[in-house]
Order: sequence, then structure tokens, then C-alpha cells
Amino acid sequence: MSRVFNFSAGPAAIPEPVLKQAQEELLDFRGTGMSVMEMSHRGKVFMDVAHEVESDFRALLGIPADYKVLFLQGGGKGEFSIVPLNLLRGKKKADYVNTGHWSAGAIKEAAKYCDVHVVASSEDRKFTYVPKQSAWHLSPEAAYVHVCTNETIHGVEYFWTPETGGVPLVADMSSHILSRPIDVSRYGCIYGGAQKNIGPSGLTFVIVREDLLGGAHPWTPSVFDYTQQAGNDWMLNTPPTFAVYLAGLTFKWLNTQGGLAGMERINIRKAELLYGCIDNSGGFYSNPIAREDRSRMNVPFILKDEKLNAVFLEESLAAGLAGLKGHKAVGGMRASIYNAVSLAGVQALVDFMNGFARRHG
Amino acid sequence: MSRVFNFSAGPAAIPEPVLKQAQEELLDFRGTGMSVMEMSHRGKVFMDVAHEVESDFRALLGIPADYKVLFLQGGGKGEFSIVPLNLLRGKKKADYVNTGHWSAGAIKEAAKYCDVHVVASSEDRKFTYVPKQSAWHLSPEAAYVHVCTNETIHGVEYFWTPETGGVPLVADMSSHILSRPIDVSRYGCIYGGAQKNIGPSGLTFVIVREDLLGGAHPWTPSVFDYTQQAGNDWMLNTPPTFAVYLAGLTFKWLNTQGGLAGMERINIRKAELLYGCIDNSGGFYSNPIAREDRSRMNVPFILKDEKLNAVFLEESLAAGLAGLKGHKAVGGMRASIYNAVSLAGVQALVDFMNGFARRHG
Repeated sequence: MSRVFNFSAGPAAIPEPVLKQAQEELLDFRGTGMSVMEMSHRGKVFMDVAHEVESDFRALLGIPADYKVLFLQGGGKGEFSIVPLNLLRGKKKADYVNTGHWSAGAIKEAAKYCDVHVVASSEDRKFTYVPKQSAWHLSPEAAYVHVCTNETIHGVEYFWTPETGGVPLVADMSSHILSRPIDVSRYGCIYGGAQKNIGPSGLTFVIVREDLLGGAHPWTPSVFDYTQQAGNDWMLNTPPTFAVYLAGLTFKWLNTQGGLAGMERINIRKAELLYGCIDNSGGFYSNPIAREDRSRMNVPFILKDEKLNAVFLEESLAAGLAGLKGHKAVGGMRASIYNAVSLAGVQALVDFMNGFARRHG
Repeated sequence: MSRVFNFSAGPAAIPEPVLKQAQEELLDFRGTGMSVMEMSHRGKVFMDVAHEVESDFRALLGIPADYKVLFLQGGGKGEFSIVPLNLLRGKKKADYVNTGHWSAGAIKEAAKYCDVHVVASSEDRKFTYVPKQSAWHLSPEAAYVHVCTNETIHGVEYFWTPETGGVPLVADMSSHILSRPIDVSRYGCIYGGAQKNIGPSGLTFVIVREDLLGGAHPWTPSVFDYTQQAGNDWMLNTPPTFAVYLAGLTFKWLNTQGGLAGMERINIRKAELLYGCIDNSGGFYSNPIAREDRSRMNVPFILKDEKLNAVFLEESLAAGLAGLKGHKAVGGMRASIYNAVSLAGVQALVDFMNGFARRHG
């Protein structure tokens, strides 16, 4: 069939020009007579790819020179362990903010390695907001402060950067990295899985300030030791080369969208369009998140009449709109409108939703 | 250019029919209107893929029902840590056999977690053979005995299965898995990276006997905890879905080669052809490995006149034979003749080598 508009939460939509280029050169990369996935990661051809990928990622995010960039494996969930193993640096305590499913997962995993102090939580209102900084109770002795800056399931996003004094701020940005400019210098470490805004699953990015290196626990697996990987240009082991290559194509595609500033303008329009449809539906659709904390990437919404869920999913799929089923933790629907979901895709969704509400309202 | 014969050590050649099918369905998988890498790993379409992949892998290797199969991330080198974290099960000691670069790497990493006892080593003769079982000094109290059954760099392969009494045998089979039938029931755990005989880099397979589960060290990252992954059908975190899918295509391709018995017949012919060329070159080419331990997958060889190395590499590449440069640890050349390297490819290499020896001998 023709391509659908894909609202999957992750693995998720990849820009069509990226897929088309990958398709075209899949059997012969840059005249080598082999696929990019069939060649040594240490050969010149792939090393050129790797350098371009890192340098384009650095340029897009404006990553300062005193930060290392690593492309690893294990995903965001892997980092839930790998972060404390690397960043506790002999300290016994870490601060975590709980804003939903993913920060809760990070907290649970970190508790295996240290005394986790939950400095703030939005569990009291079912994770529908980001706790204001004024309500955070930071521990000066913490090794770091951990936040999940976009909760994929609950649809909550930070649009501000926490102030943590001298304590390094660590952020899981899996599901909104590259959706808008950020000030990397405010963070000690930023990490995430690639399968939302970067490429296929199986690739992890880590951005870490150099002064935080050197203190990994001796039990840290070498391939997940930031210091060792940084010292080997993230090639201590064989990287997931095809995923790295696809990430690189996505970075180049982002440049055609005006970089992160251009991408942010598009993402704001997409989010306004979709939340506008929900808010103007007279209660047919609703989203429970505090207005100022609504994610631009993941838009969960419920239908007033839950009995319509099945027909909504069936009719939307028939209309070429895929991946709208909500996560079981919150129910209803969820539209993930990552970078690769076009404004036209969101417009098609909104048109469908308006029509569905008219037919069933 | 047209496709080359690819002798890369890993990432390595992938069967052309696999790449062609992947290319054909890259933008629309099974009529979904999206790429297999753009869909939820928990959706029905990908779950069907995942089940097929595991079931085909099980069938090819004849994996008994009391073994779990896991498709993870982190590669063989990641497993060097993950194996002791999972399989020490409270014990303090593990036995390791040292047959070259990769077993040495496993030993170094395991020493972070336990008392490593090197029960046998071929370092005395530069890793050119596999120490006979009679020379092994096993420790009855060891948690497991670890071997690397094919040393990719040195080109040494086990053609027999060690006897370890009641102690579980753990094997890194990264570079010869699926090259011939094996008796899985003789092993407690078999693992490896996918990037030689299975698919692209970024995918790890683990085959583990169920009675060895349940004893992971509490510090094992959850995504690398065999027990947790087994309990979640290796979907505790998002698997590298595209790599899993490609592995599945490779498994189906293996069935067209007559399964592992058929593949072994082809691999024997390939190895005989190449070693025959080396041995019959009057010393122009040589391979230092004990005849009975010569790897069928990785064939290192040196030229009598090292000054010819550069021209050998240049002329072979011009003849459409790629990836022949040897590893710096042993120098010279290396032809990796994994499953995806055809008999025609090895014949072309041998024809080239014979001609080169005539021209330069």
C-alpha cells in the first residue's frame, strides 16, 4: 500500500527521504560494491560516515567542545543503569524527579546502585504536569540530578531547564531530542534511545561533559564505560553501523528543515494544530496535561465515550493514520508527532478527528 | 559499481538475497505502509517477525526446549561483562581458556567480577592452536568454563566440544555460529555478536540453559539480566528491530542452503579450496595454524615477501575482492569466508592468489 501517516511512539516514523536514500544505496554504498552494513567499522569509508554523524549531531545541537558524544547500544533503559554506574563517581546518593513512567523506571533501576532521593514528583496528579522548580528539594551531596524531559507515555515535557546549583543535571531526552534547540551547556549529561527522533532502535546517544568522566565504578561493563568509549571515539566495540548511518541521514535531513530552529517552528505548528483540535472538540476529545507542560512530541488524548475507541482506531487506520492506540498505562489514544511526522500528517489526523467527532458526537 | 566479493571480518558480507528483500520492502513492510523499522516492537506485525526469528534460529540450531534464546544489544564484547554478571551466581571463580585476542578480552573483562582461572592457553605458540583438553586444569568450584570457539583474528577454531563435567560450558561463538551444526545441549550458554554470520552489527544472541537463570548479580543492568529478558520474551526494552528482521531474513536464506548441514558442506569446500591454495603455493603464502584447528571462517595468511602486501591489497581490490587486509595483531592478509561468502567468491580469491603468486613469485 502507499505510505501511511505514522504516529507510532517508537520505533517511529523516519523521514521518507532518509528511507529512500538508504534503499537506493543499500547494496552499494559510495561505490564500494557493498552495503554500508557489510563493511568494517574501522575502514576509511565507515570512519568517514562516523565522523560526519558525530559532527552533524554536534552542529545541530551546538554541543560545546568540552562535551563528549558517544553512540552506544542498550537504549534509554540501558542508560538507567549505565548512568549511575558512570556518574555516581564514588558518591552514595542521586536526586531524581518523578514525572511519569520513564522517570519512574530510571528511579527503580538507579536504586540498585545508590540511595535515590526523589526530589519532586507529579504522581499526586497522575503525572499530568511538571513539578515547579520551587517545589524541588535538592540534595547538595547528590552525585547528579536526573530528569526525563519528555515523558513519552504521559505526554509531559519540560520547556525550561532546571537549576541544580553545582550538581550535574542529567536528562533522558529520548523522545524529544532534536525537536528544538537546547542549551547543552546547562547539562552534565544528556542521553536517549534513537528510535524516536533519530533513527531505528538499537542506537543510544550520550552527550557527557568531560569533567564527569574518569569515575566509573569498576564494575561498569567496558563497552558502557563512558570514559573508555570516549577514549576510543565510541569504537571500543563494534557500533551498530547501519543505525549510525541512518542517524546521519536523519541529521542531514534536519538541516533541510532549517536545523533545530526550523524544526521547532514546524513542531510548534503541529502541536498547536492537534491540541487545538482536542481543546475545541467540546469535550469529545480531551488531554489532561497542564497547558504549559504539554508535550509537543507525544499527545495522549481520550474519547469522552470510550466505547468509540475501537471504531476510532479502525477508521483512522483505514484513513491511512497508523499507530494511534494509547499506552495501556493511560488508555485512549496517543499521537506521537515526532520530527518525521509532517505538518500534512498532523493536518490529516486533525481532519479525521474533526470528522469523526461530527459523525459520532 | 557492481557488488564485490567481500572478505571483511565483521561487519561482514550479508547474503545478497537478504539485502535485496530488505531493499524491496524498506518503505512498506507487509503492506503496512511503513518500514519494519518504523513500527512498534509490541505491535502484531513486528511480534510476528520476532516469533519467526526466534523460532527459525531455534530450528536451525536444534536448540532444546529448556534453553532460552535472547536477542539483545552490546555485542560479544558487552557479553564479556554480562556473562559473569549473570552466570557467576554467587560463585567467586570462573575458568577461562585463552586461545587468542577474543578469549583474552573476555578474560580481562571477567577479572573485574571474579577470580579468573586460565585453565589452558596457547599463548606459548602465538595462539596458533587449540590446547588439547588433556592439558586443561579445570576448577571444580568454577561457576563456568568459558571458551571462544572461533578466534576471528588468529583463525583458530574448535572442532570438538570440551568436557567440563558438571560445570557449565560457556562459549563465545560470534564468528562461527550457524556455520555448521552444533550440539547446543553440551553448553550452558552460547553467545555472540551478529555481525559475522547473522546480520548487521548491534545485535547480540544469547542461548542460555534455563537452570542457569535466576542468579544474576543485583548490579546487572536490567536490560542485560538474562532472567528478566527471558521473562519478557527479550522485549524488556526495545530490541534493535531492523537488525532482528535482517537476522530473520538470513535464517530463511540459510534454509535455502540446506540448513546448517548444507551450509557446513559448502563451508568445508570453501575452506579446503583456500587452505589448499595457501599450502600449495610453495611458501609464497603461509598460514601458521595447526592443521586440525584451522578456522573455516577466518583464514589469515602472510606473504613470504611482506613488501608485496600493498600491491596484493591494491590488485585484489581492483579484481573485486575486498576486505583482505589482515588484523594488525598478526599482519599479512585475512580472508573471512563466512556463510554469506559464496564458493564462487572463494574460487575468485584463489584464482587471484594463484595468478598473483605466478606474477610475483
